Amino acid sequence: MTHANTHLEIDAQLAALERLHPDLHGRDFLLTTDKTRADLEAVLLVAEILERLHAANASARVFESGLAISIFRDQSTRTRFSFASATSLLGLQLSELDEKKTQVAHGETVRETANMISFLTECIGIRDDMYIGKGHTYMTEVGAALDEGFAEGVLHQRPNLVNLQCDIDHPTQSMADLAHLKTTFGGDLAALQGKRIAMTWAYSPSYGKPLSVPQGIITLMARFGMDVVLAHPEGYDLLPDTLTQAEQGARESGGRFSVTHSMQEAFEGADIVYPKSWAPFAVMQRRTELLEQGDDAGLQALEKECLAQNATFQDWECTDDTMKRTREGKALYMHCLPADITDVSCAAGEVSAEVFERYRLDTYREASWKPFVIAAMILTSRFDDPAALLRALRDRQIPRRGL
Amino acid sequence: MTHANTHLEIDAQLAALERLHPDLHGRDFLLTTDKTRADLEAVLLVAEILERLHAANASARVFESGLAISIFRDQSTRTRFSFASATSLLGLQLSELDEKKTQVAHGETVRETANMISFLTECIGIRDDMYIGKGHTYMTEVGAALDEGFAEGVLHQRPNLVNLQCDIDHPTQSMADLAHLKTTFGGDLAALQGKRIAMTWAYSPSYGKPLSVPQGIITLMARFGMDVVLAHPEGYDLLPDTLTQAEQGARESGGRFSVTHSMQEAFEGADIVYPKSWAPFAVMQRRTELLEQGDDAGLQALEKECLAQNATFQDWECTDDTMKRTREGKALYMHCLPADITDVSCAAGEVSAEVFERYRLDTYREASWKPFVIAAMILTSRFDDPAALLRALRDRQIPRRGL
Amino acid sequence: MTHANTHLEIDAQLAALERLHPDLHGRDFLLTTDKTRADLEAVLLVAEILERLHAANASARVFESGLAISIFRDQSTRTRFSFASATSLLGLQLSELDEKKTQVAHGETVRETANMISFLTECIGIRDDMYIGKGHTYMTEVGAALDEGFAEGVLHQRPNLVNLQCDIDHPTQSMADLAHLKTTFGGDLAALQGKRIAMTWAYSPSYGKPLSVPQGIITLMARFGMDVVLAHPEGYDLLPDTLTQAEQGARESGGRFSVTHSMQEAFEGADIVYPKSWAPFAVMQRRTELLEQGDDAGLQALEKECLAQNATFQDWECTDDTMKRTREGKALYMHCLPADITDVSCAAGEVSAEVFERYRLDTYREASWKPFVIAAMILTSRFDDPAALLRALRDRQIPRRGL
Repeated sequence: MTHANTHLEIDAQLAALERLHPDLHGRDFLLTTDKTRADLEAVLLVAEILERLHAANASARVFESGLAISIFRDQSTRTRFSFASATSLLGLQLSELDEKKTQVAHGETVRETANMISFLTECIGIRDDMYIGKGHTYMTEVGAALDEGFAEGVLHQRPNLVNLQCDIDHPTQSMADLAHLKTTFGGDLAALQGKRIAMTWAYSPSYGKPLSVPQGIITLMARFGMDVVLAHPEGYDLLPDTLTQAEQGARESGGRFSVTHSMQEAFEGADIVYPKSWAPFAVMQRRTELLEQGDDAGLQALEKECLAQNATFQDWECTDDTMKRTREGKALYMHCLPADITDVSCAAGEVSAEVFERYRLDTYREASWKPFVIAAMILTSRFDDPAALLRALRDRQIPRRGL
Repeated sequence: MTHANTHLEIDAQLAALERLHPDLHGRDFLLTTDKTRADLEAVLLVAEILERLHAANASARVFESGLAISIFRDQSTRTRFSFASATSLLGLQLSELDEKKTQVAHGETVRETANMISFLTECIGIRDDMYIGKGHTYMTEVGAALDEGFAEGVLHQRPNLVNLQCDIDHPTQSMADLAHLKTTFGGDLAALQGKRIAMTWAYSPSYGKPLSVPQGIITLMARFGMDVVLAHPEGYDLLPDTLTQAEQGARESGGRFSVTHSMQEAFEGADIVYPKSWAPFAVMQRRTELLEQGDDAGLQALEKECLAQNATFQDWECTDDTMKRTREGKALYMHCLPADITDVSCAAGEVSAEVFERYRLDTYREASWKPFVIAAMILTSRFDDPAALLRALRDRQIPRRGL
Repeated sequence: MTHANTHLEIDAQLAALERLHPDLHGRDFLLTTDKTRADLEAVLLVAEILERLHAANASARVFESGLAISIFRDQSTRTRFSFASATSLLGLQLSELDEKKTQVAHGETVRETANMISFLTECIGIRDDMYIGKGHTYMTEVGAALDEGFAEGVLHQRPNLVNLQCDIDHPTQSMADLAHLKTTFGGDLAALQGKRIAMTWAYSPSYGKPLSVPQGIITLMARFGMDVVLAHPEGYDLLPDTLTQAEQGARESGGRFSVTHSMQEAFEGADIVYPKSWAPFAVMQRRTELLEQGDDAGLQALEKECLAQNATFQDWECTDDTMKRTREGKALYMHCLPADITDVSCAAGEVSAEVFERYRLDTYREASWKPFVIAAMILTSRFDDPAALLRALRDRQIPRRGL
């Protein structure tokens, strides 16, 4: 099944994995900033090995039974199907906790529900990205409830959490992005040292998008020695802590982190550009407060004010002209999708149709890493020796499809 | 995989199971009163063995393919995930019949739908608990349709039904409760003989809860020699038949069954208390009629009247004070969850925060039996020699997770 | 497991399959008219072998992991569960793309979504039958997007599409119907030569049903030498192309195809009758246009006009009287279900209660083929030598349930 070439490729990846000694077993994956660089490299390698095994039609089924549960508190296509793909790859059955179908709204506490859904569960993926200060807090509460349930003998095993996007980070996205960069720049993370990545705000008619993608990108990429430039109009700040973390990451990795209020400046000499809309942090915070107060009039006023402010930044668009400023005019364009494409999905958006079309298949390849990254996060959290397990998967020669 | 201790434990359970000769194969599990005591003990033993296998990381996959279908006509968290867990444990794929997504509403008869969803189906779990006289009737209609479909060659095999709560009984709950009692009182059902269990009504601001839990508890526990006391305010009667069955069960088992209109009296000397809100039977019946007539004004009037009546019983609360009346003040508190907890999920509820918190993890452990009880109901309905099957599962040494 | 008889039966079916050399591997199943007669016969044989294996408790699991995705743009019970059953039979995990839960509505293009859900996907089933000119077009767009994704290295493998009903055809229904006819008339397709099938419109109070069933039936059955009579009131035309294809099919197979505006005439001497409501083609087209224009007043006016027109054809009902005209009064009654049954599901419908009840179990048996037909479509699209695969399934003796 696995050809000689694949066998050798996987061998090299396994050898690299064995050198890392990550500390991932039994731990949730909530924020990349919680993880060591060895942890992150190990997740990437496991994702790459799973990708190779899949391409070579080798089964990666490591569970005979058991549930994976997803809780989506915001809509999703890509991440939803990536999670379904990842859990299927490993042999888990997916159950979605749909809060509308359940009694969660009827006075159940988080810790009770966390235990009730976990008796035969291996992992829980959660998306909760709508309100500043809420999503990550919710995930840590679920984690603490599972700790208690396991310690007190309620659960035979404690499921691990995978953050499918919170208010702070979007690690399955940023790690997929890192895998895409590693592949695009020759397969070695060392090649990213000194590469300039422009994480810039871009205009979109829907102004309320989460901050977790830019926050996830600047904090992660700075740790891999990249020259990270964050650009946004004044007022479109990110969570202050994430800037501090990006600075620290850059310092420790020999990278750079800087902020500018000009998309043009950020694009200058960039190897990679990531133009994407997000909501202003201060606005998100006010919105969260107004929602808590149930102040509909306040929310409408805020929205009106924001849309007016937002509309003044329509020139923050990634076009052929802005792309010319990048290194040899050929920077890699990245996006977490769906992009707001001018004249395609809206009248004025984040990116021109020409630029998007040139890089469209690249963005699909970028997205293609997400299922494998999620599977890697699950596998490394559930098994203490992922290298041995993956070696066994490769060697046992059970086809993924066919007999 | 399975350690020597687990092996011996399971051996003892298998030996006990082999002595029982239950008559469960090919039969639906709709009401515990349809089952012999040997049947019920067998389901408990199978649940316990599956629980041991799971804890020992032994795969209990007995299906290579096939559907489990759930039909939830009322919302659910615990039971929904318990059913998903149980079916995953055995290797089935879960499909939920969502009546909003289907053409069921468009004139399809029950018998047609029952066959249409069953061609490759092993079991169907149904929750239909909202209307007196409806849920159990619906389940028996589905069962009759499957009988016909199988007899007439439409179906290769007849799926079995599991009642996930009807208007009469909630057997997956009461059997999980019985498993919890068996474990709590030393692992032997004989130890329950003479133990006093107070199944009492308790106040909740939402007055319309099903009657199936108290009905299920009194009919089941009376059969295991317990001293069952049912307590509720006047007017909050249960279905008369279930009282008759509880009396008969007590007579045959050497237990007791009595009714009182005082929570205090019921708690006196109790070994176990189960304080829980339910709707008055007569009210549920009137409500069902008004719903059938589409009489919205009547429904509103009824609700108003009920809430006023209900509010006069706020002192039916399980508190530190009432708990003092129980045996040495240390009765086991039980609840099917979610409980209405005073000052936590509502201003005045079924149980005080102090009492609930003291027994909170016990209620989680109580709930932890439900997936295994459901799996046991499915397994015993599908296989004619569950002991042989479980012995083979233990001995074949295939890990549930890992290679 | 498989008994000697089953073994021999399957042997004969495998031998027949090996003689056919179908061209199904790697191809979508969108329209039966895209397929050769050998293709269609091969799908039937594979469905029959899978049905035999299932009845003999032999596992047909050919996938260790991987997703099957369904996209239902219209409600469904039978087809939804048939798809779930089929994919479970083969070992796939089902994920439903619910467009309300996803970001599809937010400006995502078809080609992007098609790739995003397909990274680890084996097949995609789509129902999109509401608007003339839309459903088949959508499916071919999804197919083209997958072609591109695979060619450009985005996807390791290209999933195959199965049409679960479009505006033109309903091939999983018509092929299940053909399997039912083959079985009913002795198990040999040659026996259908010259058999008269009356595909006739019938009255239903809900006038807007898709045209794909009658279109699928006339185009498919004409190719198997049948004497196909299409009957409908004036104005209830089908898509003109499908008539041309039915004529051509009949010419090539030595069958016949004719159109009449009298149900009575169509029933005359018929061996099979298929009375079923559908909307007039011209009306469906106007409705599609009005929907596109968002013309609610126009839609209401159209509906009113249609209902009035429709009501004049209440005598198009299949009754004991009309059945007497068929061959010896004993034609086989067929329906895709749910039927509109007079005095059962409506005051006046497609069929009388007496006729329907006489053939009710036949219609269930007809429907029972659908899961196996869908599984056969998936299996033949994913494996280049289905006969070898099915032989191996039969010979490896792994039970579908039990150890």
